[in-house]
Amino acid sequence: MLSTSSYFCPTKVILGNGCYRQIPDLLAEFSAKKVLLVVDPAVAQAGYVMEIREMLSGKGIECENFSAIEPDPGDQSVADALALSTALGAELILAIGGGSTIDVAKAVAIVSTNGGRIHDYEGIEKFSTDPLPLVAMPTTAGTGSEVSGSCVITDTARGVKMSIRHARLNPARVALLDPQALQSLPPHVACHSGLDAFVHAFESYISRNTNPFSSAVTLHAIRLISGNIRQHVANPANADAALQMLCGSALAGMAFGQTGLGNVHCMARFIGARYHISHGLSNALCLPVVARFNMISNPELYRDVAQAMGCNIEKLSLMESAEAAVTAITDLCSDLGIPNHLSEIGLKEDDIPELAKLCIGAGYNKWNPRLTSERDFVALFKAAL
Amino acid sequence: MLSTSSYFCPTKVILGNGCYRQIPDLLAEFSAKKVLLVVDPAVAQAGYVMEIREMLSGKGIECENFSAIEPDPGDQSVADALALSTALGAELILAIGGGSTIDVAKAVAIVSTNGGRIHDYEGIEKFSTDPLPLVAMPTTAGTGSEVSGSCVITDTARGVKMSIRHARLNPARVALLDPQALQSLPPHVACHSGLDAFVHAFESYISRNTNPFSSAVTLHAIRLISGNIRQHVANPANADAALQMLCGSALAGMAFGQTGLGNVHCMARFIGARYHISHGLSNALCLPVVARFNMISNPELYRDVAQAMGCNIEKLSLMESAEAAVTAITDLCSDLGIPNHLSEIGLKEDDIPELAKLCIGAGYNKWNPRLTSERDFVALFKAAL
Repeated sequence: MLSTSSYFCPTKVILGNGCYRQIPDLLAEFSAKKVLLVVDPAVAQAGYVMEIREMLSGKGIECENFSAIEPDPGDQSVADALALSTALGAELILAIGGGSTIDVAKAVAIVSTNGGRIHDYEGIEKFSTDPLPLVAMPTTAGTGSEVSGSCVITDTARGVKMSIRHARLNPARVALLDPQALQSLPPHVACHSGLDAFVHAFESYISRNTNPFSSAVTLHAIRLISGNIRQHVANPANADAALQMLCGSALAGMAFGQTGLGNVHCMARFIGARYHISHGLSNALCLPVVARFNMISNPELYRDVAQAMGCNIEKLSLMESAEAAVTAITDLCSDLGIPNHLSEIGLKEDDIPELAKLCIGAGYNKWNPRLTSERDFVALFKAAL
Repeated sequence: MLSTSSYFCPTKVILGNGCYRQIPDLLAEFSAKKVLLVVDPAVAQAGYVMEIREMLSGKGIECENFSAIEPDPGDQSVADALALSTALGAELILAIGGGSTIDVAKAVAIVSTNGGRIHDYEGIEKFSTDPLPLVAMPTTAGTGSEVSGSCVITDTARGVKMSIRHARLNPARVALLDPQALQSLPPHVACHSGLDAFVHAFESYISRNTNPFSSAVTLHAIRLISGNIRQHVANPANADAALQMLCGSALAGMAFGQTGLGNVHCMARFIGARYHISHGLSNALCLPVVARFNMISNPELYRDVAQAMGCNIEKLSLMESAEAAVTAITDLCSDLGIPNHLSEIGLKEDDIPELAKLCIGAGYNKWNPRLTSERDFVALFKAAL
């Protein structure tokens, strides 16, 4: 018997090739005449972004542009964007970009109506006024930030990442999933962000907090991502693969904030920070060893993962099916050219004890399905070395 | 390539055995001090309903009770409940019951804030003011009304069922899925309502309007319902099976209003009305023949259905896998004791031409995956005779 649980995703999702053309009508539904456009610098000059700006202008919608967004965005970006938003009197935020861009847009939306600065809202449900409405169009199939209840902003003074969470008030009001926005994505970004989305789906599906609603969306996310990520990385302009990836990434984003994640994300956090590698690559590097370690916690769920990844499991025993999932995950990373060893990105054996300590301190045992000790983390890092 | 599509379910779902005990805290979140309780007469005296009323009273929440609800509820029920709600000054509607009960509650919530009478809102998005907040706890695993955007109320003067739809404003704000509410369900009601939910999931999954979000929830609904309906019908007090059924029914309800349904629902509508049999049984009677008829429209989706229903398909060709789905669906109806022939509920061959005409007029070809002519409907009714 399940204990009491819950599921909630208040975002309206619009999907399909060319759906960005609905943006002017959408903004009209919100009666927004002044809009802050928070746009990733990599796509700010793209044809479809220009077209969106022209359509808005044609509808008499005043639009200010904010593009000074860095990876792992900081509080200064939020403050700068907020100043622009306030000067304009923005009634709605339109975000076009990856997770960093959407997270800055969310933070601006929160502070615009709740006052103060973003630091005041670190934690869970620390604000209660509806943020400015947010319409988000992701340009990577990765974070699922467009539908998730969290945003992450770096407090530059303290040098820490602040997580600001609110399941009801922090997701975008509307998410637009348009493969045109992924057409000129560099393949390595498609790869790393896509594997980040896969890890969201996988760790959420096997989390201790899973329920039938989160399982529905994450199992389908595993199916869509594992079936399309190779094609997406091979050619991000493949619109079919890109759309399926966007859907998989959003489906995972609908659940992982509610179920929590596991050891992959835990280890990746500290590796990414220490060795300055992207969040997606950090995840991918830790995925195979953690997938194997967690297998004994719930072989039935691993069997589902194997089936969703297209493995032939009918003739296999339960444990053989679970093994098939681990093999499929390892093969996926290998096909995408992920390095086999953490040493290749600079990890040294001497760093491991400190990393393991950080992992234990992060408290992922409340979500990760196999209880993990500091010693286990040491073994996991060594296995991945 | 998919054309543009969308997905939206604004309901927060709370699930688990005993989750009804969260109701007082939930109502407090809405700051509701006066509540209209719309409760199915079959459960109005049940222990958990009494406990809920006592808890509300203990919190100083004033509560009026409305239980005069018939199957296929009419406009008079809505008017009577509305009068009670208005006299109380209700700030929130709490519905505990099956689809009829929840539909009456939705209608009261709409008219309370939009004025007029429920007839004014027949159709799609005919109201724009937020209804009174609705908290719904289903007592059958069937309609998915707690999460869907529609309610159906009979206009008694015209003798027609009015469908009132609004994807954003008509679903309950909170749905509570608690197996305790299904404990004393008569097995035949568990069977017919559960098969209704299965048909929602199946017809939505193969609909022309399906997209990856609706597919995620309906495919998992097929898995949960087909894996638990036998146990649920055998013993509705089996809390594990009942909870999985409630989740399956709600997952289907999250999608079918957006994708549309197909020939099963179309034929069942007119059979139910003509021969006075329940909506669920009408569906079940038409399901096997329609499942076979639609098979050629999309064998790949049928293969997914077969796999979700637990069929061994690895050694099978695509068409053999699709056949396996049809067989599994037919076996499911048979295991649950559904009559094999429409003649057993009174259908006569002479009635068929008129029924086929009604089916064509209902316009389900926009959703049903295989284009269906009047002649096809005649053949379908004959095959089911």
